[in-house]
Amino acid sequence: MRRFPAHPFSPLDDPNFDGDKLKEECGIFGVVGVNDAANFVALGLHALQHRGQEAGGIVAHDPEQGFNSVRRFGYVRDNFTKAEVMKDLPGPLAIGHVRYSTAGSKGATAIRDVQPFFGEFSMGGAAIAHNGNLTNAAALRRELIERGSIFQSSSDSECIIHLMARSIQKTLAERIKDALRRVEGAFAIVAMTRTKLIGVRDPLGVRPLVLGRLGDNAWALASETCALDIIGADFVREIEPGEMVVIEDGKVNSSRPFAPAASRFCIFEQVYFSRPDSIIGGRSVYETRRQIGVELAREAPVEADLVCPVPDSGTPAAIGYSQESGIPYAMGIIRNQYMGRTFIEPTEQIRNMGVRLKLNVNRALIKGKRVILVDDSVVRGTTSRKIKDMILEAGAAEVHFRIASPPTAWPCFYGVDTPERAKLLAATMTEDEMRDWIGVDSLKFISLDGLYRAAGEAAGRDPKAPKFCDACFSGDYPVAPADKIAEGFEMKAAE
Amino acid sequence: MRRFPAHPFSPLDDPNFDGDKLKEECGIFGVVGVNDAANFVALGLHALQHRGQEAGGIVAHDPEQGFNSVRRFGYVRDNFTKAEVMKDLPGPLAIGHVRYSTAGSKGATAIRDVQPFFGEFSMGGAAIAHNGNLTNAAALRRELIERGSIFQSSSDSECIIHLMARSIQKTLAERIKDALRRVEGAFAIVAMTRTKLIGVRDPLGVRPLVLGRLGDNAWALASETCALDIIGADFVREIEPGEMVVIEDGKVNSSRPFAPAASRFCIFEQVYFSRPDSIIGGRSVYETRRQIGVELAREAPVEADLVCPVPDSGTPAAIGYSQESGIPYAMGIIRNQYMGRTFIEPTEQIRNMGVRLKLNVNRALIKGKRVILVDDSVVRGTTSRKIKDMILEAGAAEVHFRIASPPTAWPCFYGVDTPERAKLLAATMTEDEMRDWIGVDSLKFISLDGLYRAAGEAAGRDPKAPKFCDACFSGDYPVAPADKIAEGFEMKAAE
Amino acid sequence: MRRFPAHPFSPLDDPNFDGDKLKEECGIFGVVGVNDAANFVALGLHALQHRGQEAGGIVAHDPEQGFNSVRRFGYVRDNFTKAEVMKDLPGPLAIGHVRYSTAGSKGATAIRDVQPFFGEFSMGGAAIAHNGNLTNAAALRRELIERGSIFQSSSDSECIIHLMARSIQKTLAERIKDALRRVEGAFAIVAMTRTKLIGVRDPLGVRPLVLGRLGDNAWALASETCALDIIGADFVREIEPGEMVVIEDGKVNSSRPFAPAASRFCIFEQVYFSRPDSIIGGRSVYETRRQIGVELAREAPVEADLVCPVPDSGTPAAIGYSQESGIPYAMGIIRNQYMGRTFIEPTEQIRNMGVRLKLNVNRALIKGKRVILVDDSVVRGTTSRKIKDMILEAGAAEVHFRIASPPTAWPCFYGVDTPERAKLLAATMTEDEMRDWIGVDSLKFISLDGLYRAAGEAAGRDPKAPKFCDACFSGDYPVAPADKIAEGFEMKAAE
Amino acid sequence: MRRFPAHPFSPLDDPNFDGDKLKEECGIFGVVGVNDAANFVALGLHALQHRGQEAGGIVAHDPEQGFNSVRRFGYVRDNFTKAEVMKDLPGPLAIGHVRYSTAGSKGATAIRDVQPFFGEFSMGGAAIAHNGNLTNAAALRRELIERGSIFQSSSDSECIIHLMARSIQKTLAERIKDALRRVEGAFAIVAMTRTKLIGVRDPLGVRPLVLGRLGDNAWALASETCALDIIGADFVREIEPGEMVVIEDGKVNSSRPFAPAASRFCIFEQVYFSRPDSIIGGRSVYETRRQIGVELAREAPVEADLVCPVPDSGTPAAIGYSQESGIPYAMGIIRNQYMGRTFIEPTEQIRNMGVRLKLNVNRALIKGKRVILVDDSVVRGTTSRKIKDMILEAGAAEVHFRIASPPTAWPCFYGVDTPERAKLLAATMTEDEMRDWIGVDSLKFISLDGLYRAAGEAAGRDPKAPKFCDACFSGDYPVAPADKIAEGFEMKAAE
Repeated sequence: MRRFPAHPFSPLDDPNFDGDKLKEECGIFGVVGVNDAANFVALGLHALQHRGQEAGGIVAHDPEQGFNSVRRFGYVRDNFTKAEVMKDLPGPLAIGHVRYSTAGSKGATAIRDVQPFFGEFSMGGAAIAHNGNLTNAAALRRELIERGSIFQSSSDSECIIHLMARSIQKTLAERIKDALRRVEGAFAIVAMTRTKLIGVRDPLGVRPLVLGRLGDNAWALASETCALDIIGADFVREIEPGEMVVIEDGKVNSSRPFAPAASRFCIFEQVYFSRPDSIIGGRSVYETRRQIGVELAREAPVEADLVCPVPDSGTPAAIGYSQESGIPYAMGIIRNQYMGRTFIEPTEQIRNMGVRLKLNVNRALIKGKRVILVDDSVVRGTTSRKIKDMILEAGAAEVHFRIASPPTAWPCFYGVDTPERAKLLAATMTEDEMRDWIGVDSLKFISLDGLYRAAGEAAGRDPKAPKFCDACFSGDYPVAPADKIAEGFEMKAAE
Repeated sequence: MRRFPAHPFSPLDDPNFDGDKLKEECGIFGVVGVNDAANFVALGLHALQHRGQEAGGIVAHDPEQGFNSVRRFGYVRDNFTKAEVMKDLPGPLAIGHVRYSTAGSKGATAIRDVQPFFGEFSMGGAAIAHNGNLTNAAALRRELIERGSIFQSSSDSECIIHLMARSIQKTLAERIKDALRRVEGAFAIVAMTRTKLIGVRDPLGVRPLVLGRLGDNAWALASETCALDIIGADFVREIEPGEMVVIEDGKVNSSRPFAPAASRFCIFEQVYFSRPDSIIGGRSVYETRRQIGVELAREAPVEADLVCPVPDSGTPAAIGYSQESGIPYAMGIIRNQYMGRTFIEPTEQIRNMGVRLKLNVNRALIKGKRVILVDDSVVRGTTSRKIKDMILEAGAAEVHFRIASPPTAWPCFYGVDTPERAKLLAATMTEDEMRDWIGVDSLKFISLDGLYRAAGEAAGRDPKAPKFCDACFSGDYPVAPADKIAEGFEMKAAE
Repeated sequence: MRRFPAHPFSPLDDPNFDGDKLKEECGIFGVVGVNDAANFVALGLHALQHRGQEAGGIVAHDPEQGFNSVRRFGYVRDNFTKAEVMKDLPGPLAIGHVRYSTAGSKGATAIRDVQPFFGEFSMGGAAIAHNGNLTNAAALRRELIERGSIFQSSSDSECIIHLMARSIQKTLAERIKDALRRVEGAFAIVAMTRTKLIGVRDPLGVRPLVLGRLGDNAWALASETCALDIIGADFVREIEPGEMVVIEDGKVNSSRPFAPAASRFCIFEQVYFSRPDSIIGGRSVYETRRQIGVELAREAPVEADLVCPVPDSGTPAAIGYSQESGIPYAMGIIRNQYMGRTFIEPTEQIRNMGVRLKLNVNRALIKGKRVILVDDSVVRGTTSRKIKDMILEAGAAEVHFRIASPPTAWPCFYGVDTPERAKLLAATMTEDEMRDWIGVDSLKFISLDGLYRAAGEAAGRDPKAPKFCDACFSGDYPVAPADKIAEGFEMKAAE
Repeated sequence: MRRFPAHPFSPLDDPNFDGDKLKEECGIFGVVGVNDAANFVALGLHALQHRGQEAGGIVAHDPEQGFNSVRRFGYVRDNFTKAEVMKDLPGPLAIGHVRYSTAGSKGATAIRDVQPFFGEFSMGGAAIAHNGNLTNAAALRRELIERGSIFQSSSDSECIIHLMARSIQKTLAERIKDALRRVEGAFAIVAMTRTKLIGVRDPLGVRPLVLGRLGDNAWALASETCALDIIGADFVREIEPGEMVVIEDGKVNSSRPFAPAASRFCIFEQVYFSRPDSIIGGRSVYETRRQIGVELAREAPVEADLVCPVPDSGTPAAIGYSQESGIPYAMGIIRNQYMGRTFIEPTEQIRNMGVRLKLNVNRALIKGKRVILVDDSVVRGTTSRKIKDMILEAGAAEVHFRIASPPTAWPCFYGVDTPERAKLLAATMTEDEMRDWIGVDSLKFISLDGLYRAAGEAAGRDPKAPKFCDACFSGDYPVAPADKIAEGFEMKAAE
């Protein structure tokens, strides 16, 4: 999802202690066929909270009480667990959404950007929750406004509702297809009408969506399998790229509304976004990450005393690196578990503390040691510098960074919050320059081929037909980012 | 404004201690040409709080920061006075709205019904605040939805924004005209674009709207003159029925977008809605009400010891009645000034207290006395009965009710929250039956002619061309309530 | 109650739009013998809200669940009406307190100053609610601290709990007597143990306290009779000066713990503090105030067109003035009923609005008229000046102030929040100087004798044995203000 | 700290998803000699949040503005980071406290139990923050109440303030000594007067307290070294058992107010309470825990495919077990990082989810594997059973529990929240019975000697003079729990 700067209800920027991570912008979940479906959605969204921490919403439908909706800033556990809230969301069918990017906006206005979005159509209501980003949303929005649509949010996803409203199809499911054929970009969608739970993935399948089953008649759709686990649902299968499923009366009907295309799943889901206990493409995310560490140890060995993860995302790769290299694994950096969310309106003094509020060096362990630090990625490099400072101040003899992804040199336009290209360290420096800028004894990234191997492609990346979307590393964008190109973004020159 | 029951975000009902009053549903205010216009709007809305107590909103525009909006449940004094809120509403142009009828709705969803409404059009944004009710809104809404509009609120007023969106006019001011030519019913509107403050009254001028001036270049529009007083603005004139003013660059341009029609100002504004310190049609509202008491004393004299108002709305008429009759005026009923708003989620015990939470009899004064009680109106009659009980329990010898309006026998469809017809006491009983049902020694209403005389029409009401809208008393609806007729409402048979 | 500046938890000052009124500092209420006594206390406190608007507390006792307490900033109607709060206050015995002077303090610390205070003693718990002020509290507090007491609040009333703790009496009722024999000043007290409801008035009876009966076995104690009315209790009698009542098992036992003294009830309760529908000393407060207007019309007649009250406290005297003088009564100033409480953290602009937020002139009525304004008192005179400005700006021909109390020239040390003496207008100016400073055509105060006559003393004030405490007018303090004298306050020289 | 049931303001119990952990009840921190000391205290408390998650308080002293205090429920990061709060805590000297056990209490009353406690004495104010528990507090409290003290909280720690108030010593520092000589049990204390920062540990040194230095003149006292790290202070040394330090004018003065005794530091701080990046007794806590895993692998080897920690507390021991055994370390259970605090008022459905809200099995990894689970302790055993269920449901071939502490068979009376003895699994079952009850293939606890070895005592535990307090494992209580014995607690029979 993206924000449109012209809109009057623009959220503010937020001091961000997680500055050097890419942010997945959404998690989606839906369930049909259970009593109080919204309670299940709350649990599913809680399991998907890592995909969007700033706000969440649930829409439920009850045959008696119609559609109801609650949308709030903050964590699922704080907003969607109280009986007094959940009683307003009755019924056997519900969908929900957690999102990242409204950080720092306040009050009633920006709540408009929180999904699911709801529309009342002549044949009834429908709600929609979208993970991903539409690359032609700005153009669509301009066109729709000119034709008389009133946008209520600053979100690209709202286009889908307006395209549905203008479709001449007779059913809402057909109108969703109609609308999605007009949009470009990445979308995994969970939608609902009064009786149907609907799931769709874009033709390339950039964002994940899985199907789960709960007993005989109940079904769930979720961004990741970990959200099926929490409600006790069995993982049935992934929704396939370009597939639409319509679940009604306990039956799942599949169709293929789009022209066929080769799948390009986001490889960064494997590296960082997805939870390690999720299963993607038939593989454990944890195992892929551990294997990245194994590949890194082979590609970039170094003599050292300890392998330490930058917690928590570097942990599986650090375990793999240790196992492959034989260098002992150790918790050299301890994460303050009470820093799940950033401070709200901190004092100046606290704003300046930065990474120390979140991480502390295990001084007694580190002192005098040669330390390998394994992190998942380097975006701006700012946090890496601060961690290096902390480790050296604690008396480490040497510091070697090993990064579980290739250099992040290109922005993502498919649903990830990336800095503009000029702020990506790897867009302006070589690996050696980055090493010197961060100020460590060595810095090595896994190769793109190594990453593909860890992700199960024994032969590495096939440049003619890469199996994943790896645009953030390669600049090879599977869908042209039309709005961004119109704004002046320059694609990588053909080689 | 009206709510549409089909909408998923329906507000709940509210226990209402003011059960026997008609409720004006909105107050509107706008200002242009001052620094921090929103602060002036907050003051103006505070002065108009009696027109809508449940929620309020302000939209402001700043050349640098664009449009900003804050909408909240609760009083103006609690929401729009803090520096931390008002700093988010910068700029020299702002409009605002207070409303009644969202009582009891909760959370983020129903805030959608709080005005001003905002729309982003191809030529820029516009915000609109509406006092009144559109009698063809349901039909318009159906049509707009079929043509692809997505409604976000349950309010009739939102139609105006969608009609603007579909207009082919080139300027927003022209689009407002276009939209308003399509709607029927009562509307006083304050709207704004990036540079213009706009005011419009419907052709009959059912709802009030006045123009004020602040210094050389600043202008204000307000529902009542008391809101000009609070900001220190001079009252210039009323916006005329069917007039549209567009204020830009310190200039007021007037036009007449509608076919000419004879004015029919709401006479209940004189009786109850407007504040006594406002000036309407060149007359003091207070003086009109005092004169109603004088007329009542002439039409319905009775021997008694004291004339007591039912506070606070009966006070001016009671003063007039006392002055004309020579019977001493006294405060026989004391109002608890801390009951400005109803209790939120009261305990069962408190819910049953009803009127005693709000009013108390001045027992030492009343005991053994023949008391004339002057009230502004009788709607369901429930509160009148409770007041009579209190007065008798305190030992009054006789109780005589005198009512400063004719029997309320017909619902209002022009922006007032009236019970359905069957619940109006006067729709089913004669004056004598009402007297017996309430249980007082006598009960007299002012005649419709007497009311017109008090309002300055020396000859009383001309049935061929009545000067006011008095449909709630006469059943003579100046605009046919199309939606209601479609739902089955029966108009008064022609005589 | 008074604040002690040495305490670390000192509340802040509050911008105060009611600047020119003396403030009663407390209302107290207790009930025993009903189910859910706390609900009755909430209603009683709601009726006493005018005696203390900033905070309130209730302590209830249940045989099973022991003592429970809720104390909150804000109005009774907002804090003590929700089922979720009241369910925490079960049991047949409860007392409560509303207070004025913690305005502006924030957060958890200053809630410590909100009564009732509770103490756990070796023979069980007791709670106490105090209206009045102890004139030797500072000395007692120093002594108690030196002997090892830890004070938790900044309130003088807390001394009573510590004196009880150090008493060697065997019962809590005896310990209360013991404690109250040590204190000086004004006190009306409602207290409770596990089984007893206790009421006490100081020997002079400066502050009011009345006894009411509810059915056969239930009893209530209240600052004013209007609080008995709201719960439907019958007014039995006043607690007499120097009397202590202990209510247990449906029986009321009376005793006289103090040396006998002549009664000196606060005459300002008649003028302003008490509600007009209360009965004090067998007389209607409203009637006393109306009679003050009658006396004023006799003492200080003037030719004019209208008699207007400064709302709401000047209303009964204005009615009396009009009736005696024959000059028509009119509502020349309209009060905004949504200003019950002051704005919280207003913007600069709103802070500067002052009285205009609360009062507006009825311009059409006032224009060109000679106006008599009747107000209850003049303290600093600041509000009087602003009102005069408003009236003149609206075009009044003449403005005559008539004040329903004598010049307020001395501070109160018995439970009323008065400015220091130097800030009292009447302490430094003659009546003529005040007239010129305020800027009106004439200014007249009722005489002290006239006030006594209106209060039922046909012979006026007996300077040898005045029947009321009138120290604020006369400087004749019935109890020497020991703490204040120690701080340097100079008593009036003997004449 | 302990709660006294007789007090009327008793907090409620809280549904607790962390049911099978002992809870440290407090963390304390103080700093002197810096600008805005409270900001440093907030950071220190944030680093100590694991020691008390339910509430926190800070008292600061400024020469101009005296003592100020803020006490709140919830996390430090939510309460003590906003400029608007911190500006109320000015000055160069401040102390703070985080606590566990007020979970579930609500509103203003129970905030009374939140420390620091403050007392106003004849020679000035003092505030005190206490980690530990006084074993004779009930007897002291009874005595103090009989002598006239009024307790405001239900906390044992408040006794110290009242004992200080009754001391005849001339200085506050001497009064603290006086008071602490009267109490028994465990106490690490940080206190402050207007000019002094004071730290004390009980003679046995059961609870930790360390001294840090910040630049030349500023000093800090903290429960753990990790809180020195976060403010950038250097760790100077531990406060010794029985030592009192008084820091004033940049100087640290040490004294020994108590009779000498052999040190008995709490060994559970090593096992679980302290953060792994803290240094205790000259050793890294992390390293001690890793070494426990090494000892466990030696004492209780088993053939398996994976060693998995129960996150997060079992992690270091699992690393040690893996390293010693050669069995690969793996993240078989993933912790939901958004579960830092328990749900507030969850729905029934969510209440029943229990551990699944917090932990999820890495199914793809676990399936078909023989798994060793390493946890820090077993208290009731309830969570262990649920984890076993999850692991088996995910398809594990075998489950072996290895516990990084001996069986917890006795309650702690020195500041840890332990269930009563009958609810401790190890108090009623043998190791084999526990294995069967939990339902795993094997269950082994580290021996007490093994634990001592891991903690640096190469010879294991000397039963004549054990170096640690290990009462929870051994029943050997270094201070007799007088209050508990009076209530009927039976000590272990002498062997």
